[in-house]
Amino acid sequence: MQEFNAIFGEDKTLIEKIRKMDYEELRSFAQEIRKYMIDVTSVNGGHLASNLGTVELTLALYRVFDPYEDYVIWDTGHQTYTHKLLTGRWDAFKTLRTFGGISGFTNVFEAKVDRFGAGHVGTSIAAALGVEKALKLQNKKANVVVVIGDGALTSGQALEALNQVKAQDSKIKIILNSNGMSISKNVGGLSQVLEALRTSKIYITIKEKLKKGFNEAVEFELKKIREVLKVALIGEDFFESIGLKHFGPVDGHDVRSLEEALRQVKDYPYPTILTVFTIKGKGYYFSEQNPTKFHGVDKFDPDSGIFEKPEGTYSYSEVFGTTLTKIASQDDKVVALTAAMPDGTGLSQFSKQFPERVVDLGITEQSVVTYAGGLATMGFKPVVAIYSTFLQRAYDQIIHDIALQNLDVLFAIDRAGLVGTDGPTHHGVFDIAYLKLIPNMKILTPLDGQDLANMLWTVLKERDKYKGPIAIRYPRDVEFGNLEEICGKIEIADPFKWQLLAEGKEVALLAVGVLAKKYLDIARANGWSLIGVRSVKPLDEDMLEKIFETHKYVFTIEEGAELGGFGESVARKYLRDYADNYECKVQVIGIRDEFIPHGARDELIRYVGLDSTNIEQLIKKYMMKGVRL
Amino acid sequence: MQEFNAIFGEDKTLIEKIRKMDYEELRSFAQEIRKYMIDVTSVNGGHLASNLGTVELTLALYRVFDPYEDYVIWDTGHQTYTHKLLTGRWDAFKTLRTFGGISGFTNVFEAKVDRFGAGHVGTSIAAALGVEKALKLQNKKANVVVVIGDGALTSGQALEALNQVKAQDSKIKIILNSNGMSISKNVGGLSQVLEALRTSKIYITIKEKLKKGFNEAVEFELKKIREVLKVALIGEDFFESIGLKHFGPVDGHDVRSLEEALRQVKDYPYPTILTVFTIKGKGYYFSEQNPTKFHGVDKFDPDSGIFEKPEGTYSYSEVFGTTLTKIASQDDKVVALTAAMPDGTGLSQFSKQFPERVVDLGITEQSVVTYAGGLATMGFKPVVAIYSTFLQRAYDQIIHDIALQNLDVLFAIDRAGLVGTDGPTHHGVFDIAYLKLIPNMKILTPLDGQDLANMLWTVLKERDKYKGPIAIRYPRDVEFGNLEEICGKIEIADPFKWQLLAEGKEVALLAVGVLAKKYLDIARANGWSLIGVRSVKPLDEDMLEKIFETHKYVFTIEEGAELGGFGESVARKYLRDYADNYECKVQVIGIRDEFIPHGARDELIRYVGLDSTNIEQLIKKYMMKGVRL
Repeated sequence: MQEFNAIFGEDKTLIEKIRKMDYEELRSFAQEIRKYMIDVTSVNGGHLASNLGTVELTLALYRVFDPYEDYVIWDTGHQTYTHKLLTGRWDAFKTLRTFGGISGFTNVFEAKVDRFGAGHVGTSIAAALGVEKALKLQNKKANVVVVIGDGALTSGQALEALNQVKAQDSKIKIILNSNGMSISKNVGGLSQVLEALRTSKIYITIKEKLKKGFNEAVEFELKKIREVLKVALIGEDFFESIGLKHFGPVDGHDVRSLEEALRQVKDYPYPTILTVFTIKGKGYYFSEQNPTKFHGVDKFDPDSGIFEKPEGTYSYSEVFGTTLTKIASQDDKVVALTAAMPDGTGLSQFSKQFPERVVDLGITEQSVVTYAGGLATMGFKPVVAIYSTFLQRAYDQIIHDIALQNLDVLFAIDRAGLVGTDGPTHHGVFDIAYLKLIPNMKILTPLDGQDLANMLWTVLKERDKYKGPIAIRYPRDVEFGNLEEICGKIEIADPFKWQLLAEGKEVALLAVGVLAKKYLDIARANGWSLIGVRSVKPLDEDMLEKIFETHKYVFTIEEGAELGGFGESVARKYLRDYADNYECKVQVIGIRDEFIPHGARDELIRYVGLDSTNIEQLIKKYMMKGVRL
Repeated sequence: MQEFNAIFGEDKTLIEKIRKMDYEELRSFAQEIRKYMIDVTSVNGGHLASNLGTVELTLALYRVFDPYEDYVIWDTGHQTYTHKLLTGRWDAFKTLRTFGGISGFTNVFEAKVDRFGAGHVGTSIAAALGVEKALKLQNKKANVVVVIGDGALTSGQALEALNQVKAQDSKIKIILNSNGMSISKNVGGLSQVLEALRTSKIYITIKEKLKKGFNEAVEFELKKIREVLKVALIGEDFFESIGLKHFGPVDGHDVRSLEEALRQVKDYPYPTILTVFTIKGKGYYFSEQNPTKFHGVDKFDPDSGIFEKPEGTYSYSEVFGTTLTKIASQDDKVVALTAAMPDGTGLSQFSKQFPERVVDLGITEQSVVTYAGGLATMGFKPVVAIYSTFLQRAYDQIIHDIALQNLDVLFAIDRAGLVGTDGPTHHGVFDIAYLKLIPNMKILTPLDGQDLANMLWTVLKERDKYKGPIAIRYPRDVEFGNLEEICGKIEIADPFKWQLLAEGKEVALLAVGVLAKKYLDIARANGWSLIGVRSVKPLDEDMLEKIFETHKYVFTIEEGAELGGFGESVARKYLRDYADNYECKVQVIGIRDEFIPHGARDELIRYVGLDSTNIEQLIKKYMMKGVRL
């Protein structure tokens, strides 16, 4: 990613400007920022709702703390647009999430003031403890501040790091951006406490009264108040019980109150947590109404809040959700699991129809996977609906809890491959390689929506035949076609058989999953064979032998890491079992050993050289001149 | 692992027997169990201290709950010896951890009553929630009980699952086995609270007084008491704040009190947590004195508590610890990190000499890795000392926090390869493959202790030259040699160059890391070349080309998963760059695609076929008769 190394240095222009503003000016500047965000994201896409929620918080934060002197670490960079705007990237913001433009997350290669990159949640506290330790060892003084959402705080890493703050003798200042939401609504005991706090209008009054005496307050208010009171007390104690001083809550859209609270926190000599109540999607009618929909948006019309969706298309997530619902209506052993993403993973319909059979455990990928294991030990057929990149969080659980016990857990891996504008923190390009090495694991790669539906159907209908952990991976993409038609045509289909999409000679392309059909034209034009690889593990050995027997050149192509991927399986297999009998040239094509930047999905496929034009050239050059791939 | 599928079914003999015992009989039975444990582990090795701590707890638990009707899920199976003894494995216990014998952990393939296997911590609550959900969906009634240590409760997964208990409308009963220890002493805010509770002799008195009135208690006791009181209140509230009813604490070595508390818990209609105070190592003088040493033991003399250590040997952990201490004394940027294992990873000496530069974050592998990232952004040289199997827990953090940001974090991966009697939950056989696919990651595999020392020295001394994340993997093993001598001979050595250990012709063995020297004899005897592979990534391409140029047969050999490992890199590379010019037969030898059982390390190396006798036969057969590997 060399070309993205243009670092934004120290630029205090806007920071100094906002420090001179009065509160009225700040209010109108906040409006300006919001309008700019809506304008840019309505064209470029982006994380709108979360960023609309942190405008005043960032303004207040940078009036009190200095992002260049202090260390402000944002948990999950998708709340950092205002941070970016204030730190030298006002103009660059127009390039947000475009290829070569600025990232939608904090990014250490983009700006020095992006102290720690984060596209996944829950990393900020541990990173901050590390930064603080470095300061201590050097006897340097600076504030270390974390801004973390209450959604992120449901993740194990955030909780385990929070639990170490006191023991590490830390003085970090945690700002808890509490909006009651992850991407969807938060779940969890702590969230319930925070939610009760949030919704309590009378909280402040009660707190005042508490100072005068417990009994008086209890007598004065009635039953409902007593409940709130209990929650309020307990809510503080969660954090205080593990050694943090809990400040707030304060209104996250009132710069003055925020500033007061932040100054209090700044001077406090022990680790603190300040609860700030914000409204996800604040200040834009449509996103306030539906913050989940406006969490991560593609192009939309800012005046109507309507998203453009190409006519006559379906997304893979929809195929997954619809098919699973259909299966579940015939099989009460099917249970769907999600880590805080019932909508993103296509489970909305399923949730409505079978609320008791969809489990949302918050942003706890590890626990979601193990929970699925628990269900499987009891004879159920759990389906973990998850994005490829987030499944990385549950790696040990996949190995230790599921595969080792050979449990019937189905992993429905959405957003596999290049995800587009979210960029390197979110690309799902490692799953084939990191799952392949796990014993008992099978990896399926449907060729299109129909194939995805058929595979889900087959595996879940015939779970006794297809035992153990099975992963089905599919991309963040839409295809032309009709969802209902697909559902109408679902059938049992052996998931381990590859499909001969074009029969040719001399050259065979073994293309994995949805990539395969992209090469139909070049295969036909050149008289090459094209095989749609539907199963990366196990390999279809019958087909493989036939290919080696009848072709001179074999190219494996996959939208995933070249190192350790499908191609290497074929290479090893060829040398082991076929090289003695057949003489082929076997070449592996995949994503090179580097992190891939952000940009539109199509652009990125070209960037990594997997577009059909490049593949055709590559192969021809190789065959004619022996040019290395 | 087919041959280990002999399942122990329902055997209630002992359960029925202990239910008829009076407390005096139980006391003497507990003594009998302890003696048996000491006898067996002093020969077979095992997790002695933790199991000595849970004798009475298990007795009481199975007098109140029925392990065959209820679902008791043990977090981290290494506290389950009494459970095994009581559930049909009294005689089989003699085979503990031996090849083909019973496992040292819960294991679903061993006994039906082992509800969920666990060698890693923190998985029990999520698994229990899954089991409970299955019961609910089937309208079945049974108690779901979790037994978890306070050490395990520092792990993110345990905390995130705990936080979901209330939201999932669960009624699980958690028994918190609080002994103040992980493998070493616990760290973390919650641990401090529990520790304060533990050490408070006056806790019960105060609780009584509390019932009479807050003020009276405060007045009656003095400052110290006030502290304890505060902690006691807060300690309860941590769990209650997230929706669990907190019972206890009770004395974990008094069956009667335990039973009373468990019966209370059993009847309680909401999720509960019962704190039980146990003494790790209880009832055996030497382990009570030093529970860390007796956590996981090899053969020892039960009368003296002395471990047999072969004369004139060193362990790789010792080489690591000693070398790192030496480097740290010259470079104040070196900081060592551990997830609750300062001793196991060889950091004891380092801790003593540089207490401010060793960080123990509890069992928080994820946070340890991210913390190291934080340090690296500040110009430090963090070294994460960790076991291969536990590094799986931090997989996403390695990718997302470290590699993506190309941070200078050194992973010192101990217990890589087959670990021996701990078995499949602990083998470190996946690291090469799962790290290889990560961009920016380098993977070093020292050939012996001296090489390990030199590599550490070189990488940390010349960090500017060797940038980004680097993993050095070494086994759980001892070698003949002298630690001080090694330290005296440390020198700078290019870590990416392979070493020609024996020069021969026709056949070349590319053997990874410490395996290489095992084949010296067969290489010399047969006139084969033997290359010690010191770097799996990057490959030593100069050496590789030379090998292909001058040999007809090339065998890669690694103590790691064959799928996605070093051999596949060589296979891909050969086909890409060398097959046109040189005609070699390239064959990949590693650990087959299956989980490997427990047994002595030597036995297991034979089991997977990596011993030199088998390798020699394999290669000769292949060359003579073309027999597939």
